[in-house]
Amino acid sequence: MARDASRKGPHRPAIRLERLEARLEAVNRFGADESGSGINRLSFSEADMQAREWLAAEMRQLGLDARLDPVGNVIGRWNTGSGPAVMLGSHLDSVPRGGNLDGVLGVVAALECVETAMEHAIEPVSPIEIVATSEEEGRFGGMLGAQAMAGLVDADWLANARDDSGQSMTEAMRAAGLDPAAWPQARRDPSELKAFLELHIEQGPVLDRAGRPVGIVEGISGVFNWGVGFLGEANHAGTTPMDLRRDAFRGLVDFSAAIPGIIEAVGTPATRLTVGKVDLYPNFPHTVPGRVDFVIIGRDMELEVMSALAEACRERLQAAALKHDLELSVEQASWLEPTPCHATIIDAFRNQARELGIDAPLMPSGAGHDTQMMAHLTHAGMIFVPSRQGVSHAPEEFTDSADIEIGCNLLLHTMLDLAGRG
Amino acid sequence: MARDASRKGPHRPAIRLERLEARLEAVNRFGADESGSGINRLSFSEADMQAREWLAAEMRQLGLDARLDPVGNVIGRWNTGSGPAVMLGSHLDSVPRGGNLDGVLGVVAALECVETAMEHAIEPVSPIEIVATSEEEGRFGGMLGAQAMAGLVDADWLANARDDSGQSMTEAMRAAGLDPAAWPQARRDPSELKAFLELHIEQGPVLDRAGRPVGIVEGISGVFNWGVGFLGEANHAGTTPMDLRRDAFRGLVDFSAAIPGIIEAVGTPATRLTVGKVDLYPNFPHTVPGRVDFVIIGRDMELEVMSALAEACRERLQAAALKHDLELSVEQASWLEPTPCHATIIDAFRNQARELGIDAPLMPSGAGHDTQMMAHLTHAGMIFVPSRQGVSHAPEEFTDSADIEIGCNLLLHTMLDLAGRG
Repeated sequence: MARDASRKGPHRPAIRLERLEARLEAVNRFGADESGSGINRLSFSEADMQAREWLAAEMRQLGLDARLDPVGNVIGRWNTGSGPAVMLGSHLDSVPRGGNLDGVLGVVAALECVETAMEHAIEPVSPIEIVATSEEEGRFGGMLGAQAMAGLVDADWLANARDDSGQSMTEAMRAAGLDPAAWPQARRDPSELKAFLELHIEQGPVLDRAGRPVGIVEGISGVFNWGVGFLGEANHAGTTPMDLRRDAFRGLVDFSAAIPGIIEAVGTPATRLTVGKVDLYPNFPHTVPGRVDFVIIGRDMELEVMSALAEACRERLQAAALKHDLELSVEQASWLEPTPCHATIIDAFRNQARELGIDAPLMPSGAGHDTQMMAHLTHAGMIFVPSRQGVSHAPEEFTDSADIEIGCNLLLHTMLDLAGRG
Repeated sequence: MARDASRKGPHRPAIRLERLEARLEAVNRFGADESGSGINRLSFSEADMQAREWLAAEMRQLGLDARLDPVGNVIGRWNTGSGPAVMLGSHLDSVPRGGNLDGVLGVVAALECVETAMEHAIEPVSPIEIVATSEEEGRFGGMLGAQAMAGLVDADWLANARDDSGQSMTEAMRAAGLDPAAWPQARRDPSELKAFLELHIEQGPVLDRAGRPVGIVEGISGVFNWGVGFLGEANHAGTTPMDLRRDAFRGLVDFSAAIPGIIEAVGTPATRLTVGKVDLYPNFPHTVPGRVDFVIIGRDMELEVMSALAEACRERLQAAALKHDLELSVEQASWLEPTPCHATIIDAFRNQARELGIDAPLMPSGAGHDTQMMAHLTHAGMIFVPSRQGVSHAPEEFTDSADIEIGCNLLLHTMLDLAGRG
């Protein structure tokens, strides 16, 4: 039912999936991995810049004003109507050997929405802008394109950022024909925009498991990152009785075992509490671990919940330290507050989903996206299409065409709703 | 009280601590670390072989028949009385940068017992042998000296054993002037011996914490060593809800949290269950651990308890795998049965401790010792003196002189008891 909802007749324009997929195929020639699967379109690489040139040409074919801004964002403007613009898009860069969809799907979807509106002779009241942001995948540790538009660039970071291989971001930008010193000119004035819309793959398993074609993002989760250490005493595991040990690993076990209870007590369905990195010392089978270092990553959509989670974690860590006679150290590496999507955008997506008969649940985003930067500039919101088995950042990344079509139609109608159909 | 118990008069000979300590100092010149603390007397090293020559000379000064057997054991025989001999001793080799006492204390204690008996004009009914075994610390992965005497050498192992640096044991033996091919000649006939006694530092904290000067070892714990793996699915920790994870680390946490309960249900005070080595994959803070490899080391003094522990561990591992949708793999790297000390030797130590007014608790040994090999050859038993804070295999290894004196007197009187005072 949902699949055909957008094809009810001339009064309800629908995107053309084949055209979208043809563009997806075209842009993914840039950076295609030699193995035949996977995309290498690292930010500011030759493939990335070639893809941006291709995109600007596509935009011009549609009659848009296309430009490359000083940090590499490609912006195509449909000078229809007047006043602040509705912007839609996502990023073009990929991780090393990434998939076919992450980022680029939102860019070709934006093109498709504009072309569909044009071929239905719709003249929106507000101008429309399509954007393909640069450096979203964090090769240099940030989201330069969206940050620059939103005025969130730290000049020191820009000057000193390097990738894993040690190459500096400014060098990479210059090699790509960009002028790093001109970054302040990429900043957009809030008065120029009325909304930012992004379509992206979920990169998680929720929609795929639930069999839903689209999700409406309520916001990007806040994250805290704690480096935690328990210091006990390394001893011979054969000669040291259980009750005379100061086993650092037992501290971690006690804390980790408490995680489900912490979430039940103070968390929400959006809460994530993860221990993903653990280093034992000396990490020898016959030695009671004298020390363990580990990282706790906590996420939630609500700041108060994050605070309650942090407090509960600290209590449990202290209880574990006390119980096993360990020294506890907690270092907060970062604390990023949640970025809610704007209520007007969420409502617009929900209304259009209802109109189109799409069952689109509200959901948090546990991953970072351009939207979280754009939310500082304008009313921003995003939708997810399913990632098969939650896979992303890998050649196996996949979304059903039918779901792409539904998602793109929701983007189209929300764009038209926000821009006004004139 | 206990400290002076052995000094009650001419009828109860007592060792001379200063003489024992002078010998300890003398032998520890061989391999003394350049830093001024710690001993490097690795098996078959120059320092090790020089210490053995020194020891043979000391033995000859006491009038013993001294010899170096084909695997490097130094054996000094007091040809008093007749029939099977009472053997006492320990090892002379050390770990890299080990302490002053591990092994060598039992050798100089044996010399002191013999010299004390001689100066009290005691002529034992049974011959006495002092032994300084070779390669007890496992540089090449076994306990060659004691194994060879007990007939427990695997010829393939001897031919192929290498140390961490890749040096072969046979080369090291040849460089030390030994003939590896002659190892079968080191084997002792059970009829030649009536007992083996060893004094050793505890290498654990039990006696030190309890403030006891000596412990009587009931046996060497059996050990099982399991390499365990949980295989789940690595996923983005932000986008993967808690209930959709297959978090391998949670399997380990569930198992580890169950350890105290397992011991309470089927263990004994001698039980040790340790997770000392843990490797997460990919071990990245923002990724749900898709795999964890870890090692479980289980120990107990009773074979049935070991079996019950193993069964309980397997049940808990399976339950954790089921709960978190993980694949479980368990590989038993080794299963060594407990080696009880012989009841006659334990009784002899206990009787003499009672006579001397020494409060010597029965205790297991969670570490391996020559005694566990010698138990296959003759009635074997051992006593421990305290290790301050349980430290061994380090320069900080320390035992109070008063405790060494008490332990050595217990060794002396047990030796005299078993050999008969003639």
